[in-house]
Order: sequence, then structure tokens, then C-alpha cells
Amino acid sequence: MQVDGVAYRTIWPARDGRAVEIIDQTRLPHSFETARLETVDDAAHAIRAMRVRGAPLIGATAAYGLWLALRADPSDAGLDAAAETLVATRPTAINLRWAVDAVVQDVRPRPRSERAEAAFAKAGAICDEDVAINRAIGDHGLHVFRRAYAAKTGDGPLNVLTHCNAGWLATVDWGTALAPIYMAHDAGIPVHVWVDETRPRNQGAALTSWELGRHGVPHKVVVDNTGGLLMQRGQVDLCITGTDRTTASGDVCNKIGTYLKALAARDNGVPFYVALPGPTIDWSLDDGGQIPIEQRDGREVTHLTGMTDRGRIETVRVTPPDSEAANYGFDVTPARLVTGLITERGVADASRDGLLGLYPDRARPAAE
Amino acid sequence: MQVDGVAYRTIWPARDGRAVEIIDQTRLPHSFETARLETVDDAAHAIRAMRVRGAPLIGATAAYGLWLALRADPSDAGLDAAAETLVATRPTAINLRWAVDAVVQDVRPRPRSERAEAAFAKAGAICDEDVAINRAIGDHGLHVFRRAYAAKTGDGPLNVLTHCNAGWLATVDWGTALAPIYMAHDAGIPVHVWVDETRPRNQGAALTSWELGRHGVPHKVVVDNTGGLLMQRGQVDLCITGTDRTTASGDVCNKIGTYLKALAARDNGVPFYVALPGPTIDWSLDDGGQIPIEQRDGREVTHLTGMTDRGRIETVRVTPPDSEAANYGFDVTPARLVTGLITERGVADASRDGLLGLYPDRARPAAE
Repeated sequence: MQVDGVAYRTIWPARDGRAVEIIDQTRLPHSFETARLETVDDAAHAIRAMRVRGAPLIGATAAYGLWLALRADPSDAGLDAAAETLVATRPTAINLRWAVDAVVQDVRPRPRSERAEAAFAKAGAICDEDVAINRAIGDHGLHVFRRAYAAKTGDGPLNVLTHCNAGWLATVDWGTALAPIYMAHDAGIPVHVWVDETRPRNQGAALTSWELGRHGVPHKVVVDNTGGLLMQRGQVDLCITGTDRTTASGDVCNKIGTYLKALAARDNGVPFYVALPGPTIDWSLDDGGQIPIEQRDGREVTHLTGMTDRGRIETVRVTPPDSEAANYGFDVTPARLVTGLITERGVADASRDGLLGLYPDRARPAAE
Repeated sequence: MQVDGVAYRTIWPARDGRAVEIIDQTRLPHSFETARLETVDDAAHAIRAMRVRGAPLIGATAAYGLWLALRADPSDAGLDAAAETLVATRPTAINLRWAVDAVVQDVRPRPRSERAEAAFAKAGAICDEDVAINRAIGDHGLHVFRRAYAAKTGDGPLNVLTHCNAGWLATVDWGTALAPIYMAHDAGIPVHVWVDETRPRNQGAALTSWELGRHGVPHKVVVDNTGGLLMQRGQVDLCITGTDRTTASGDVCNKIGTYLKALAARDNGVPFYVALPGPTIDWSLDDGGQIPIEQRDGREVTHLTGMTDRGRIETVRVTPPDSEAANYGFDVTPARLVTGLITERGVADASRDGLLGLYPDRARPAAE
């Protein structure tokens, strides 16, 4: 998307053909800086230090990391060591392992002299596929937004509430939940976005707001407590979020707090959509209550990082030193609260039948 | 309540009889400091700078402020000027005007030589009345807690979730929503409190956690997004909050985000109680939707204050500099989501009939 008038992806090959470049997301929203990754260790560090984050972008970075590794050492041993290093950076990221495996399977049968080039091509294909999926989600979402805007009574823009960052910064381009927002904005539909701060990691306050601002999409940041009031007062026309994992029955596991917004949407008759690429559907699971919920370091709750008025990045504690914090990463929004699932293949009801209508190839009798 | 083994109120006359002392709440949770107020200007400044906050405590501070004023100048002109100064400190605080009026009406008929002493006595009576009301709320709430603990299936303490700070720091002692928690803890019922951070001003993370920690009540701070998941997983036995204003029909206006927790409580069968002193019932209003919602400075959303690891208090910005924020102070929880209203007279259904059962003196036909 646009960063102050210039089109960017989150990762791209350097012009000199000797590196891959990224946006250093640890510096956002305070500073827009790009970084060159020249070795597989640079790529691994970028993932580990969260200079890149978001499942699709992590996968793309790892794929390019294998290219960087094979340029230095195209042997089987070099390939295996690089794959191991990259997969170990974020052990729970499913896209990461998938992307590494895809590149390894592509290059291993080839002679050493062709491996680096093949890895480069495969990494590019992985990126392009992500962009295509997200663009398709955006297209299908755009229809939803058009209908919602046409149905809107009263003045003003289409007011959309989103939680966390399911934007282009989490993918290679477009994002998932934000793709329809960008498409609607680019198509001239007046859109205004309520950006949930998304404590504790503030992905809304820091990243979604930055993305929307750079592309010129009107928005306001609100604390996570606010969405209920906004919906009570008719100030939200629809909600849209991403998801980390969706069950075969349409239960949506997403950033903690999503469920509370879905409850408020239901209580106030506001449509609640979830945008997702097909691969995030977990066909082996029917009940979202079975999804294990990650517990993270309480320091993400007790401490906050930002920029002082003097331009220095500082981390401050907001709680008493002897008060502990609990930090759960996700919650599960039951399918009954979800108006529709917006995928790259179209919009489905949040139900097994709805999803199988779009993914009939998954309608197999056996457990998977 | 206890601060590390010593019993405190939030305001008390100094031993030397020449000042009133307070806990400087702007220093919490990072430092426990008391301050002497020796003049009416000291008292006005303490209110304006939020060294004291919470409606009952503001009222008590203003009452003592009149005493300090009358010690220096017991004339009618001195009384009027002091009252005007104090009322202007927080123009929307209803308790503030009520307390000032109560003292003025008490002292104005008296000779000058008796005015200061009378103001001192009246201020003390206002404090004692607040404590008595809160203790009665705590007594009635304790019964609710006892029943909930007896009915609890499974191991572990009684898990209570609260939002914002309706604790002793907001009153003279005990608090409203926290009074039953302190009483249950003191009575030997094992209580564990989930403390909502309460963005944007962090009253939970900074004040409720501090209060509970000093009195020795087990608790954990969670971000405001977390309560839904906790209730889904059976980790909350009951919710209790305070209220800024409750309508005659039982709709509850309270800190922004309260409504979202009430929705989650209803969706998961968790009882949701609201603790309130009778005077916060607005008998003139039936529909909570009519309560005007205060909009505050967006800087409370975009900027956060805390302590660095080096012990310095710093304020940091967490959003892009060009992203605006919207900052609504309160939301309204409809009576249908409230299990019961815990008042100084007992526990009422959240309905007009429920409230009139406890306050039959308000059952007048005329509009009030």
C-alpha cells in the first residue's frame, strides 16, 4: 500500500540483487525505516526480533532467508542448517514452517548451481500468492462494504470498527481485514475506521493507525473499552477483524478482546465480519473451545513502550511493582456471533456448511 | 484500609490541628506519599490536580477546604469566596457542590467565632457518613459473596472481576465495589480479583491493584480485552463494579468498557453486580441512553505515563503523531444485564420496582 504516496510491500528484493529489504516494524509508528537483510542470519534475526511480524510476512521472510543462505552455501547441509535456523525463530508460527518446507521441496531436487535462483523465484511466488489471496479477500469484502454503505441510513462515512492489526503490515500487501477497507477507500466509498488500541501489544494504536494514516484512510484510535458505546450510539456500521485460526464450524480464534466486540455487535444489530485466507481454517477442529490459548509474558501488560516528547523511546511500568499480571493472547468468538467469513473464494456463513460451500474439496468423510 | 499494616483513610485531620492530610494519588502506584493541606488554596489545588479523586473524596476534601478557609477568614465574604473557589475546581462533580453547600448551610447562621469549628465538625461528619454508607454496602455485598462462594463448584478462591477503581481511594474508606471484596477477605473467604487495567486512565492497573496489594488481597491485572475469555473459561465467579449514575430503572452509567463485561457475563452465566450509594441514583431518568457521555482529551488515549526502570516518571506517546483519538469516558449498561444493585440499604433488582423497594420515599408521582 501507499506510504505517503509511494507504493510499498512489506518485503521486496533489493535493486542490487544482493539482499532483501523490509520495513523495520519495531520502529513503527515512531519512525519509518527500511532494513537490508543480506544473510540468513539477518533474516532469522528480523523474524525473532519482530522487525517483521504477521504469519504471511514471517513465511515470506523465511523463504527469502533460504535464498540468502543458498547464495552463500548451496549444499544440502547448508540448506538443512538454514531451514532449521529459520523454523526455530518463532516455533509456533505455522506459516513459517509451511513456507520453509515449500522452498526446501522446490530446491532440493535441483543441482547446486540452480538452487539459489530457484529459491529466489519460489520466495517471490509465495509473496505474489499472498498478495493475490489478500486482493481477492479485498474484492469480496468490497461488495460487503458497498452493500453496507448503500444500506446506511443517515449521513457520514461508512464507520468500520477493527481490532488488532490484520493489515498489510501483517502480510506482504493489502492485509486481510484491512484489504476491503483499502479497496473501498480507493474506490471512493467514504470510509472512517475506529481503530481499537488492542492492548497489551497496541497493534491497533501503533500499526493499524500508522498503515491507515500513510494510505490516507480517515480513522480514529479508541481504547478497547470504547466499541460497545460506539455501537450503542449507532456510530459503527460494521465490524471486521482478522483471525489466527478458524474452526471448521466457523468459531473464530483471534486477538484477545475480539469476542467482546462481537457480543456488542450482536447486542446492537451491527454486522460482524471476519476476513481470512483459506489456509487459516483448521478443518480438524469443530469447537473453538478446544483451541489452546497462548499465555504471554505479564510484562507486556505491566510495561508500555512509546516515544517521549523529546523523541526518545522509553518503556514505562504502569502497575505497582508487586502486582502480577495475566496475559492471554487470544479469545474465541463463537460462530453464532459472526455475520460472515470473507475468504479469497467469497463470503461464507460462519458454519460448517457455509465453509464447505466455498471449500468443497475439504468435504471428506475421514478425520484430517 | 490497610497500607502495609497501617490503617488509613484517604483524608484525615492532621495531629497538630492545623491542616488536613491526604494521600497524594498522583504519585500512585509508584510512590506512597501523604500531603498536608493548610489553606483553602491547597485544598482547591489538590482537587484540581487530582491528588484526590473520586466523587465522595472530592466532596470531603472541599468540606475540609472550607474549614481551612474559615480559620483564616470567617467572614461571609471569606466563606463565599472559598465556596466559589472550591466548586470551580471540578465543575461537573455533583458531590463537590453538595458537600460545599452542606457546610455553607451549616456555618452561615453561626457567629464568626464558631464557624471554623462547625465546618470542621461538619467535614468530619461528611467523612463518617461516607464511611458508614460504604461499610453498609460492604455488609450487603458480603452476603452476596458468601452465597457465591458457597455455590462455587470446583476448587480455588472466589474469582471476582472488577473494572476501574471503585475502591477506598475513590471514597473516604472501604470504597463501593471493593467494599465487599475487603469484607470477604477480612472474613476469611479466599478472594482473588481480576483487575481490569481500565484504559485510558488506567485506574485499575494503577489504583485498584495498589489498594488490593497494600491490603493483602490476591489479584492479577489484566488488559480490558481479557474478561470475556476469562468468563468463557469459567475463571470468573462474579463481576462487581461501581457506577457514576444509575437511572431510576436500573440502567448503570459507569466507566467506559463496563457494558462489554456485562455482555460477557450474561453470555456466560456469570452474575454481574453494581455497588452504589443511594445518592448516585438519578430518580429523574428512566433511560440510560439519555445520559450525556463526557468526551475527554484524546491525549489520555495517545499518551501514557509510568515509571522507567531507572525510577523516572515519563510520559510516552503510543500512536502515530498524526492519528487522532476519540476518548469517551463512560458507557451505559442496560438494567437487563445487571444481576443486582448493592446499596447501603440492601440488594435490589436492577429495575424501578427493585429500587423503590429500598427507597420507598422516592415513590412520588411528580417529576423530580
